[in-house]
Amino acid sequence: MTKRFWATSGRDIVFETPVLSLRRDRKHRPSAPHTAHDFFVIESVDWVNVIPLTDDDEVVFIEHYRHGTDGMSLEVPGGMIDPEDASPMVAAAREMREETGYAANELIEIGSVHPNPALQENRCFSFLAKGARLVGEPRPDDTEDIDVVRYPRREVPRLLREGRITHALVVAALWWWFQYEELS
Amino acid sequence: MTKRFWATSGRDIVFETPVLSLRRDRKHRPSAPHTAHDFFVIESVDWVNVIPLTDDDEVVFIEHYRHGTDGMSLEVPGGMIDPEDASPMVAAAREMREETGYAANELIEIGSVHPNPALQENRCFSFLAKGARLVGEPRPDDTEDIDVVRYPRREVPRLLREGRITHALVVAALWWWFQYEELS
Repeated sequence: MTKRFWATSGRDIVFETPVLSLRRDRKHRPSAPHTAHDFFVIESVDWVNVIPLTDDDEVVFIEHYRHGTDGMSLEVPGGMIDPEDASPMVAAAREMREETGYAANELIEIGSVHPNPALQENRCFSFLAKGARLVGEPRPDDTEDIDVVRYPRREVPRLLREGRITHALVVAALWWWFQYEELS
Repeated sequence: MTKRFWATSGRDIVFETPVLSLRRDRKHRPSAPHTAHDFFVIESVDWVNVIPLTDDDEVVFIEHYRHGTDGMSLEVPGGMIDPEDASPMVAAAREMREETGYAANELIEIGSVHPNPALQENRCFSFLAKGARLVGEPRPDDTEDIDVVRYPRREVPRLLREGRITHALVVAALWWWFQYEELS
């Protein structure tokens, strides 16, 4: 494989929002270093998601309105890693507690992806939370309206096949989980 | 499940790039319709990716530099659906031909995802290209430097497990493929 890294001669933030910044990079192809091309990158913190699995083999999903698609989405809990979070695992436990009211003794990192290497620099880390149990009321953000829905684990492949779960990062998390189960 | 769609009272494009636009929506929560919140949505066309499978059971991957992560990425061919593409399937065949030089008689839609329902409205459609064969030289875009790499299909789960493939949309496509194989 040929390594083909482009050089960067300039970068500026062209627009900032509370959850992402749009950055313009001035880049130079290795084979034509004197020609400049502009590429845009979406800057954001790393993300996490977590599959809460109860002792009676149910997965705790959330269903909520998503502003991107202007529709409802069935997902596992997840979100941004906050500056206060000591690690991705801590962020995953916090998001699970806030969005579902569940906690777990054991979180296992099962995989990670780049949400979109073409446009985004960040990663998304996926966790399995074993022995998840309800410990209190959910505490969603001011702008989140969340329904908590449990499904038996054996129904999860069907939820995927039937298109009930469409969030690519949730599909990836469930894939890592199935792989993890198979190998452990 | 409670349907919790938010109303929109305004939207404006705050920044445009050749591949995406950043849009600001003024939204109103169903339970508090007189309070406004701004949410940002990344507008772009729908995307496709395609798994080229040869008659000797090899998958045709591409390896290329990605500006988002500033690194190399192992992926299957894919890209944006162009206005000239009659369908997502046509776009998938075109991208496969351009990026790898391969064509196939049969493309099968195996699944689709929302890349990120929180931030993006678009979809990504995944295809399996059976009987893929080299028909000419790749014709990448001016700004693409692509290496074509073939792997036996039996090695694909290992490539995922070992973290060689990190693009979430490619992970999702491979998941749809494994599901398709299992059921057919």
